Amino acid sequence: MENLIEIKKQEHRLTKKGKETRSRIVAAAAKLMFERGVAGTSVEDVQREAKVSASQLYHYFKEKRELVLAVIVYQTECVLNAQEPLLSHLDSMEALQTWRDAIVQVQIERKCQGGCAIGSLVSELADTEPAARTELASAFVQWEHSIRRGLRAMHERGEMRADGDPDSLALALLAALQGGLLLTQVRRETSPLEAGLDAMIAHIRSFMV
Amino acid sequence: MENLIEIKKQEHRLTKKGKETRSRIVAAAAKLMFERGVAGTSVEDVQREAKVSASQLYHYFKEKRELVLAVIVYQTECVLNAQEPLLSHLDSMEALQTWRDAIVQVQIERKCQGGCAIGSLVSELADTEPAARTELASAFVQWEHSIRRGLRAMHERGEMRADGDPDSLALALLAALQGGLLLTQVRRETSPLEAGLDAMIAHIRSFMV
Repeated sequence: MENLIEIKKQEHRLTKKGKETRSRIVAAAAKLMFERGVAGTSVEDVQREAKVSASQLYHYFKEKRELVLAVIVYQTECVLNAQEPLLSHLDSMEALQTWRDAIVQVQIERKCQGGCAIGSLVSELADTEPAARTELASAFVQWEHSIRRGLRAMHERGEMRADGDPDSLALALLAALQGGLLLTQVRRETSPLEAGLDAMIAHIRSFMV
Repeated sequence: MENLIEIKKQEHRLTKKGKETRSRIVAAAAKLMFERGVAGTSVEDVQREAKVSASQLYHYFKEKRELVLAVIVYQTECVLNAQEPLLSHLDSMEALQTWRDAIVQVQIERKCQGGCAIGSLVSELADTEPAARTELASAFVQWEHSIRRGLRAMHERGEMRADGDPDSLALALLAALQGGLLLTQVRRETSPLEAGLDAMIAHIRSFMV
């Protein structure tokens, strides 16, 4: 399998029309894999959904593995962009609360279906596809670092007590968010997500001066 | 599809030998589905792993869906039993800490692979298999209620402040645990699980008198 850097280089060399076709393929694959899982989505399904020929799809993605990596990159952009501009400015308790409300609201609008578009790829890929696991880890690191930046800012400004550890709190908040989304998908109601985020935000608040 | 009550009734009617064969099939299916996912596991794979004929397997499970429900019940028993006797007595901060350490230790021993045997079934099944979703929800309710019993006991004994909500804290702790396990599987290191559980246990501690 060609690695992700190679894939990204190839993407860079594409014409405008080529980029559009490639994007259409990735968006179609992401949609189907989100709905049916990776194993439940064949390359032929993606071809039909994206309305491209087999040779067109093969031109961009030599095998399903490459398509899966592109889907992880795509979903990471979608998930993180959807939380902007809130995610980049989680440096006050008000901002954390607004972000929390927005995340819960998305689940209500989705009728609590689908879970996290990144997190839901983990169980299928993490232990069987090393390149996918690396890419998923990188997705979560981006997410964690966005949260961490806000908490670190509060810490540096002296709004968070010196004994508060913004890095550990950011990771804990992401864990509560992921588990909350998973349980919300199972239960079809947002109470696990709300309980997880509210408890973690209250814990962060306990470090504020 | 026959529902789970029907499946359980059938199980009850089996002879000793029949129960053993059925158990072997379910254990084999659980092992494969944990390793490769549900979609990645065919009925033929299970047959080979359990060393039974197609007609034997069909005798117990008319279709893969029934086998999946039995796997959820089996994994729930495995996961919850593995946490006993700690899980049934989470009624002190020491007990919560011991349980937390045991959960982290399991992940270290597993080299952080596999994630949660119940949680990892969610993304594949929750939105596409209504009976499986119901069974998964019931698995998590059992888990949550075990945690809740301990926290409620502390609350009732007056060790937890009156404004502490043991039910909400139990759900939040389960969310942190699930998200921690997911991120631990992705990263291949236990820091997300530790950060999630430690933060949530510290939050619970903040309600102790």
